[in-house]
Formats: sequence, C-alpha cells, structure tokens
Amino acid sequence: MAKVIVVGGVAGGATAASQLRRLNQEIDITIYEKDRDISFANCGLPYHIGGEVDARRKLIAATPESFNEKAVSVFTYHEVVGVNTDKQFVTVKNITTGEQFNDTYDYLILSPGGRARIVHGLENAEGAFSLHNIEDMDKIMAFIDENKVQDAVIVGTGFIGMEMAENLRLRDIGVTVVHKNENIYGHVEADIVAVLHQEMEKNGIDLKLNAEVDYYQDGFLFLTNNEKIKAPLIIQGIGLNPNTEFLKDSGVAMTAHGLIPVNQYGQTNVENVYTLGDVMETKYLHVPEQPANIKLAWPAHRMAYVIANHIHGAYDVTFEGLLGTNIMRFFDYEVGSIGIPQAAVRDYEHFVIDHQQNFKAGYMEGASKIKIKIYVANDGTILRASIVSKHGVDKRLDTLAAHIRMGGKAQDLVNIEVAYSPPFSSPKSFLNMVGYKAIEEMKKRGLM
Amino acid sequence: MAKVIVVGGVAGGATAASQLRRLNQEIDITIYEKDRDISFANCGLPYHIGGEVDARRKLIAATPESFNEKAVSVFTYHEVVGVNTDKQFVTVKNITTGEQFNDTYDYLILSPGGRARIVHGLENAEGAFSLHNIEDMDKIMAFIDENKVQDAVIVGTGFIGMEMAENLRLRDIGVTVVHKNENIYGHVEADIVAVLHQEMEKNGIDLKLNAEVDYYQDGFLFLTNNEKIKAPLIIQGIGLNPNTEFLKDSGVAMTAHGLIPVNQYGQTNVENVYTLGDVMETKYLHVPEQPANIKLAWPAHRMAYVIANHIHGAYDVTFEGLLGTNIMRFFDYEVGSIGIPQAAVRDYEHFVIDHQQNFKAGYMEGASKIKIKIYVANDGTILRASIVSKHGVDKRLDTLAAHIRMGGKAQDLVNIEVAYSPPFSSPKSFLNMVGYKAIEEMKKRGLM
Repeated sequence: MAKVIVVGGVAGGATAASQLRRLNQEIDITIYEKDRDISFANCGLPYHIGGEVDARRKLIAATPESFNEKAVSVFTYHEVVGVNTDKQFVTVKNITTGEQFNDTYDYLILSPGGRARIVHGLENAEGAFSLHNIEDMDKIMAFIDENKVQDAVIVGTGFIGMEMAENLRLRDIGVTVVHKNENIYGHVEADIVAVLHQEMEKNGIDLKLNAEVDYYQDGFLFLTNNEKIKAPLIIQGIGLNPNTEFLKDSGVAMTAHGLIPVNQYGQTNVENVYTLGDVMETKYLHVPEQPANIKLAWPAHRMAYVIANHIHGAYDVTFEGLLGTNIMRFFDYEVGSIGIPQAAVRDYEHFVIDHQQNFKAGYMEGASKIKIKIYVANDGTILRASIVSKHGVDKRLDTLAAHIRMGGKAQDLVNIEVAYSPPFSSPKSFLNMVGYKAIEEMKKRGLM
Repeated sequence: MAKVIVVGGVAGGATAASQLRRLNQEIDITIYEKDRDISFANCGLPYHIGGEVDARRKLIAATPESFNEKAVSVFTYHEVVGVNTDKQFVTVKNITTGEQFNDTYDYLILSPGGRARIVHGLENAEGAFSLHNIEDMDKIMAFIDENKVQDAVIVGTGFIGMEMAENLRLRDIGVTVVHKNENIYGHVEADIVAVLHQEMEKNGIDLKLNAEVDYYQDGFLFLTNNEKIKAPLIIQGIGLNPNTEFLKDSGVAMTAHGLIPVNQYGQTNVENVYTLGDVMETKYLHVPEQPANIKLAWPAHRMAYVIANHIHGAYDVTFEGLLGTNIMRFFDYEVGSIGIPQAAVRDYEHFVIDHQQNFKAGYMEGASKIKIKIYVANDGTILRASIVSKHGVDKRLDTLAAHIRMGGKAQDLVNIEVAYSPPFSSPKSFLNMVGYKAIEEMKKRGLM
C-alpha cells in the first residue's frame, strides 16, 4: 500500500490529505504539523479578534480526531527537520519530547508554509505578536483581555497589518500604524490605495509614515523618526519567511529565496515530492515567463486538488498557473489587484489606462466611484489591474480573472454582457468602458 | 453629405446618434421620437417613484437641446408611420398638428421600442397605468399625490411588476400583486425564485396567485378567482408589444412576432436599414442557433456602438450575439439568470446542477446562502444558469458572462482564480464548486 507523508497540516496540507482520501480509500496518509493546530481558517483570524467571526470553533475546519476518522494519521507538535529524497524518508522531531525518528514515504507533499518575520528591535519586546495561526490569535486575545489593552501599534501594512488595524479599531482599541515608507499596502499602486489613508484618519487610526522601529523599551516604541509611542500591544505584519530550511540537503530544488518551484502537477524537481501553499513557486498564467509566489488560499486549495489527483493517477488534472487575484476590505473600502506585480510590468511594452465611474447607476442613492488602473501590453494582454471602490471590487476582479484566464484581451472587455440593473451597474459597465478606452488607446498607438 | 434618420430617441436610438456624432462630425443626423422625452434612463423609473433616485433630472441623460448643440436634429411628438426602403424615405406624422411629411435618408436606424401591453379588462380603468417612459412616471407620481393613494395593485411579475411592488412599498403604499399562475418572475426557475414569495410576505405584499383581472368597476378589481380587491392605483406589467407595425409594407423583414432580425452589424435584410433595442432579434452567442430578443439596456448600448461604427465605415466592429444576462434586486434579495430561456434548454442533451453554499466565508457574520441552477450540455457548454442570494449574484453572473463568452465550459469553472478574502468569498468559491460538481457529473456520465 502506497504511503503519503504530508509536511504541514494547515490549508494546503490538510486539504491535499482530504482530497486524496476522498479519491482513494486505500492509500496510507500521515500529516506532520510542527504547531498545535491543523486545518484552520488562517484568513479568518483577524475577524475573530474583531468579532465579525463570533465563535472560535468556526475557524477550525478539521481536527486530528476528524482526520483520524477518515484514517488519516495526524501528529501535531511534530516537526519535519530533514528529508532524504534518495532513500525516501523524512526525519521528524517530536517537539514535546525532543525525540527524533525517521518515517518512509512513497509520496511526499510539502506544505510547510512560512513564519512571520520578526521586526528588528522587537525580538524581546513584551506584548509583541505576529498573527499566523490560532495559537497566535489565542495569545493576542488573552493578552488584550488580561492587560485591558487600550492601545496597539501595528508595524507593516500588508494584509495582516491592515486587517488587524481594522479589527482592533472595531474592538475600540486605539491603533497606531507604523510604515517604513509612504506607500501603505504597497502591493497595490499608491494612487489606487490613496483613499485608505483617509479611511484610516476617518476611523481614528494614527499613521506614522517613513518610520521604522528603532527599539522597544518599557512599553514604548522608539521610532527611527524620533517619535516615541505607547505600545502595550504590538502586531508585526511585515511578511513571511518560508519554512524551507529543513530541505537544504534534501535534493529538492529551491530558489535563492527558499521557495520551491513546481510544475503543472505540483511536482518539485523530485518526481514523488510535491509542494503547495505559501512556499510554492509557479508561474503567471497569462504571462508564463513570470514566476509567481502567491501566499493566498485559492492557489493552495486548487493545488491540493491537483496533487491529490496526480498521486491518485489522474494526470489530466493540472495547475494552470496563477493570476494573483487578491482583495482586502478596509472599513468602507475594498481594494484588490490581479496580474503580475507592479515591478514586473516594466519588462513589457505597455500602456496604462486609468478609469473611474460609478459602481452602479449614477442616479441611484449611494452611488460612488470605482477606480481602476490597468496595464495593457501592446497586443492587448492585461498584464495587471488594480481596483478600489466602496463596492463591487470583487465582482470586477472575478470577471477579469475569468476573462484573462480564457485569453481575453483588454479590447475584448467591451463585449462582456454584464448583469445590468440600476442597483448593480451601468449599461455600459465599468469593465466595458475600460475596454472602449483600451481600443481608443490602441488605435491611437497604431496597435489595432 | 450622408443623412441618417433615427426612429426612436430612447436608449438605443439616442445612443446610436451620440456615438455616430462622436465618430463623424459631418454626417447629418435626425431623430424622430413619437413621445415627449428622449434619452432617459428607462430602468431608473421605478426607483424615482420609490425615492432611491432622488432627483428626476438625473434620469434624463440628454435633451433635444443638448442634441442640437451636437448638431443632431431632434423632433419629439413626431411618429414615423411608414418607411419606403426603395426610395429611402420615411413618412413622419407630427402628433401635435396631425401633419404628415416625408424625409429621405441614406441610412435608417430603427429603434422604435415597444409599448406596454394593456391588461384585458383595464382598457378604461381609471388609475390604471403602465410604466414605460417618463411621461408614465410623471403621471403615476402625480396620481399618487393628488389622490393620496394608499393602496395599489400590480398585475404581472416581470421586471416592472416586481420593481414597482418594491418601490411602492418603500413609499408605504399597500401592494397587492396579481399573477396569472404560480410562478412569479417566471423567466427564472420557480425553485430559484421561491424565496421571493417569502420576501413579499415579509414586506407586507399580498400575492394573489392563479388569478387574472376579470373586470374593473368603481375602484375595485374583480379577479377570475372571484376575489374583489380595492384598486385605486393599478400598475400593469405584463410585457411589451413591439412598435413595428409601421414597417409592414416597408420591405424590412420581421418575425411573426414583429421583431426585426439583424446581422452582426445591426443591419436588417435591407443593407442601409439598421435596428437595435427591444425590437431587435439576434442570436445567443454561445448557442448561435437560438434566436435572442433581450429587452434590456446592455444589448441596446452595445448595438448602438456597432451600428454607429458600421455607418462610419468601421466594419471590424461587430455584435457577437447575446447571453441574456439579467438581474433584479427585490428587497433583500438579488436574482438573475444568463443563457438561453428555460424552455429552449430542452432542445439540448444536458444535465442540471443545483448547488448552494455561503456567498462569503461561512464563519463571517452575515453569511447566507447563494444558490444556482445550471444547465450543462454534454460537451460542458453552459446553456443557462439562474442564481439567487442576498448578495453577490451580479458577481457570479458577470463572471459567467466573461467565462461563457470566451468559450469557457462548466468543467473550466474550477480554474477561475477568484478574489478571495473572508468578506467576499470562500477559497473554493461558489463557481469553482459548481465546476467541481460538473466534472463529477460528467465523469459519472462518461462525458469526460
């Protein structure tokens, strides 16, 4: 009987194990997870702190016990510290006892994820947390309660930083956000996210720009701009480092940044070793020469299905590559993007279209602007688009995702027959208008 | 100098004239409109009655004066009563004076629209109205004010019937809805719109099913089910008849129902006669042997652009056919569909998938179900889909519109990389899950 070992039991690993069990009742499956919990809703953690997720249990999709019922063995607090791909075994450390042992596999699925980066200067700060798993969430919530926390500092303005800023404010905790330069939420263009500055101000968030942590002392943060701020609670959200050091001598190929390239089946350079989740490097679907590392849930879930099928022998199921579709709600606004990163756009001859109109019929109560910046290659390929509005950003991103995936170009956007009624759109909808503008621009440039 | 005559100055005709003027500063353009107003937001009328559109003027996109400034001649209360396509002239009746005259054209654009059907038995009923243009809206609003209307009866449950039911309730007017059978909002499946019955009840609307108007007397409606209901105001919403009688001897080909078939340039059988709007018959984009007559704004606006370009000599701009995407908000719910009509689905070997899940992450406050019924042909073609939810129906319809238009099949839905964050979706989003179910079903049936 073939044996599968899964390294890491959060979204990617747990889903791959479930999918595989669904397809195959016979195969032997073991999950090793270095932390306490498996299969939880990572993306929901900030919303439980803020209260929008009322019950903690709702964040837990599966437990070791529920996996055991499906005949999947789960070992938590068990860290895989080494892999031998020649002899096909992993070395596992029982974190509780310190013991180590080897376990052999026929197929290995790597879903080790990343760990939150620690802000320089906060290594030993009391009240400094990251938010990467349920243990972190539990600690933060307990800390807030025990210390009756009234004020918090957030370092960094990625997903976690922004979502924590919102959710702490929803608990009526005072929030100061510290950001190293002027471009908050930097993976989306500054002019698109400009409105988030106002949204912070409106919601009583104090934003310190061009500032980094110098050091921490006795409940205060000293910033590089010489400000001293009260910091009884500090949330660090400056990104993740991949947990791939244990693969150093394994023969599994990695990039200089510790990411693991995969093919369309989720295979690494070693045929029976698969990877998924935050450590996986794939390509952009529409610009395939661009590598893609998207630390989000959709890619992990899709790749889990692909890997499970491949191990089960269904070779027709493939991973197409990614578009990097992402979105965040920040108080009254929604912001997101799709496509290759801002920096990568420069590699291609392109033009930019900025467009805005009302997200629904302009004569309707509550109508307000939706704004897009879209980068179009000379052949009409939509390299990247960023969108912000109070409403309907997800709709436009999903529509673009469907369109781009099928090979749709900017000039084809005019033909998308949207669902129109005054509460939802305009008859010449937002994306239709972007298409008309693209055609105009392409004609002007002699491209069509 | 070439001369263009436009018959009908509402959405289709007015937009075609505007587009053509934009492209061509020289061409002579004249619009004849039989009613009082041109270029108004038809779809917004119920929402001004309800108050969601605060200012009446916002419903008027252009006036004869604003067209005159663009050197487009507009004659309102001028009805085109005949067309001679051999000698290329129209016969126009000045409704105010009764005079008739002929006017010649090089290109003729027909956008006569339809007129609301009168319910049998209401021909002479005081307080019985249709809602098809601003004149109707003005009359209804004046009638409500002058008579301090407290109660209204709506006959029919199409777009106008449902939207007027909602908007009259928002004015705190009591509403009774009369429908001829059990399937309200009948262009969407009964099990999908079932929730609208509850929504009516919740909002105090009295629904009379399997009932038609027998006769009207002294402020009361007598129904075929022997009920007698108070009817100081009656809104008739039982559909439109095409205003195409004037074309009877013109040589312009029409269907038995008085619709005008067009090609991809908007041309009728007569090369220099174009048509658009509610009277145009085109085809379904994804099922091209099925004729499509979609009385909605998107098709009219798109065809206006195509016709303007064709007259201007840009033959590369074409009308692809339609998907029939439609949506309606009804109090807290949204409902819509895409694809060929329910009745037409029977012509194709297909299977049906019913699916529901939460419209956003299930652990989030306010999550509730979104429900789809989707008809998949044996090759995976999405013949039709209907969706209902409190939120996000428009997103799924637009995404399907983009997907289907580009040739995407049901089994490809798994690959649409949606914008995921807990307030917006699940990582395996609604349409992704429909795709997974389609694959399962197709495998079961040996179709893939």
